[in-house]
Amino acid sequence: MELIGFAAAILTTAAFLPQVYKTWKTKDVSSLSLPMLLMFFIGIILWLAYGFLINSPSMIFANSITVVSSFILVYFKIKYSKE
Amino acid sequence: MELIGFAAAILTTAAFLPQVYKTWKTKDVSSLSLPMLLMFFIGIILWLAYGFLINSPSMIFANSITVVSSFILVYFKIKYSKE
Repeated sequence: MELIGFAAAILTTAAFLPQVYKTWKTKDVSSLSLPMLLMFFIGIILWLAYGFLINSPSMIFANSITVVSSFILVYFKIKYSKE
Repeated sequence: MELIGFAAAILTTAAFLPQVYKTWKTKDVSSLSLPMLLMFFIGIILWLAYGFLINSPSMIFANSITVVSSFILVYFKIKYSKE
């Protein structure tokens, strides 16, 4: 059961990383919307809380990584929009 | 508990919809990578399976919506790349 969860976790978090890398490289945040990023970021924090509440190792694992990468995107958006 | 899950589900799926809308409007799929989309799509299918296995209503709800929206993105990518 957790095997399926971990496979899911690896696929969805890995799919998210190229976006972070691309934004970091290009510094182009024009196509990212801040309200959308903040919604996503808060959503992931709630998923993480939910993962702890239902004691799901794969959800805790996946959302711990995604909370960091989505925070980086929020940070990039605020930083590069000002410049 | 499910309240937190549902709040998370609504935030993360809603954050995903503008991307689908934007791609549909602009037909610009150049910045989307097919392997990434396929990875994400398969990942979501696994999350959905995992949601059923652990009997989590909010995971089933969230991933049912996301499986459709990510499938639409895969479809757009294949369709508009050919044109």
